[in-house]
Amino acid sequence: MNGMNRRTALGIIGGALVSGAVLGGPLARASASSLPAARFAQQGGAFSWKPHVLDPAACAPVAYDGYWHNGYGCGYGAFYSIVGTMAEKFGAPYDQFPFTMLEVGKSGISDWGTICGALLGAASAMALFWGRKERDPMVSELFRWYEQTAFPIYDPGAGAKGVAGTLPVSTSMSPLCHVSVGKWCMVSGFAEKSKERGERCARITADVAMKAIEIMNAKQKGTFAAAAKEPDSVAYCGDCHNPGKQSPMLKGKMDCTPCHSGSPHTADKFKNHP
Amino acid sequence: MNGMNRRTALGIIGGALVSGAVLGGPLARASASSLPAARFAQQGGAFSWKPHVLDPAACAPVAYDGYWHNGYGCGYGAFYSIVGTMAEKFGAPYDQFPFTMLEVGKSGISDWGTICGALLGAASAMALFWGRKERDPMVSELFRWYEQTAFPIYDPGAGAKGVAGTLPVSTSMSPLCHVSVGKWCMVSGFAEKSKERGERCARITADVAMKAIEIMNAKQKGTFAAAAKEPDSVAYCGDCHNPGKQSPMLKGKMDCTPCHSGSPHTADKFKNHP
Repeated sequence: MNGMNRRTALGIIGGALVSGAVLGGPLARASASSLPAARFAQQGGAFSWKPHVLDPAACAPVAYDGYWHNGYGCGYGAFYSIVGTMAEKFGAPYDQFPFTMLEVGKSGISDWGTICGALLGAASAMALFWGRKERDPMVSELFRWYEQTAFPIYDPGAGAKGVAGTLPVSTSMSPLCHVSVGKWCMVSGFAEKSKERGERCARITADVAMKAIEIMNAKQKGTFAAAAKEPDSVAYCGDCHNPGKQSPMLKGKMDCTPCHSGSPHTADKFKNHP
Repeated sequence: MNGMNRRTALGIIGGALVSGAVLGGPLARASASSLPAARFAQQGGAFSWKPHVLDPAACAPVAYDGYWHNGYGCGYGAFYSIVGTMAEKFGAPYDQFPFTMLEVGKSGISDWGTICGALLGAASAMALFWGRKERDPMVSELFRWYEQTAFPIYDPGAGAKGVAGTLPVSTSMSPLCHVSVGKWCMVSGFAEKSKERGERCARITADVAMKAIEIMNAKQKGTFAAAAKEPDSVAYCGDCHNPGKQSPMLKGKMDCTPCHSGSPHTADKFKNHP
């Protein structure tokens, strides 16, 4: 410790802690009173949780039930069906997660109608295991499938907690709760606050969980390959708005049509309202 | 144990575990091999983490730096500036959180342009401490403020990591990344992939973190009161689309105008493209 005071030594320990975290080693942090943890350090390291292959069919009713459990909704249901199932089977670190945090996804984040909470829950679960480079194609596969699929598919049968039996279906063309729910209400005639709409979203929570688990299973087995087709609008609008083009300001990957096509669902409601 | 076999006894223990979790007691779960944890049980109980009052000005540079740290982005930066600061100051349970999960918020969830990741990170942090009934008004206060504020405000000064100096500002009218970024690019003339746009989003990450911490501090002190004004469009459209009205299918709280007004930014791009 020649020429090195206690503060300097602690700084080096802090640096070592960061390296340990990045390498996935245990994070033996000092007590809060003596030394702040190294900034941005993380128990076990970044994206360090180990994924497990799960049974989509077994997780689907967990997602569905999670939607109804204490009214925690879609984000909680989808996330718990993945990470909670791992917690039930394998304990730590999965069972340390504060699962109710994902209630934030309910109704498009605290009732705001932005991202579908089931998609948020599933994508968040993926982000425990894979960083952006590996995860983004998995999330895109899930979100494109969601845009283009007629929901709901899952039927809880005798386990139905909202409304039993077959429900009308609709294709949202969008990962946004506001668009997905609004389109289904328009197609089905059911109100947003109806029990049928709640049942529809509970079933979609199971649908999204199953698809996400299929993607995660394939990723773990080395067989994942993106299959979803990009909508024509993304290329059409990208011709002018992608990087290097005349107006390179396009952010995101959503199908452009729900907000920009002038369909009966969207455009110019104030000037041209039916 | 008269008339009770081992399986029944374990079932009762499982029930007790759920009660313990709800009451905030320690969750003494059995090993995975002998007994699955009670479904939907949670370490410490639902929404059981204790919030702490934080210094918004001290957390702002943490949010800004978090945005740039390994490119983890806005969701990570906003979340870490709140929960990571508590981890640095108070240790467990905050330091047990797998922070990189919030990288999922980057560019509107894995590059999709849905919810602004800074808003997702801040709302998710709130959801560790408060359930929906208490949290929704806090989230709405944050999101409304975001819709109506000209960003960015925060200036990192000599700590700038993207571009130093003053940046152009824009008001998004929307909590969506696609709209917020697109509008800023249109106003500023900078490309979505420009260093200036990245700097803008890093600064907004600090802005959102500061506002969220102010709301959370007020909540803890008992002084929180919603102040943000609801846009006229929400009432205007709600006249027909709210519960009990003629077409009760409106989901969410977003300002309707960015997608439904026929402004130069949105409507009918395919039929009426400039």
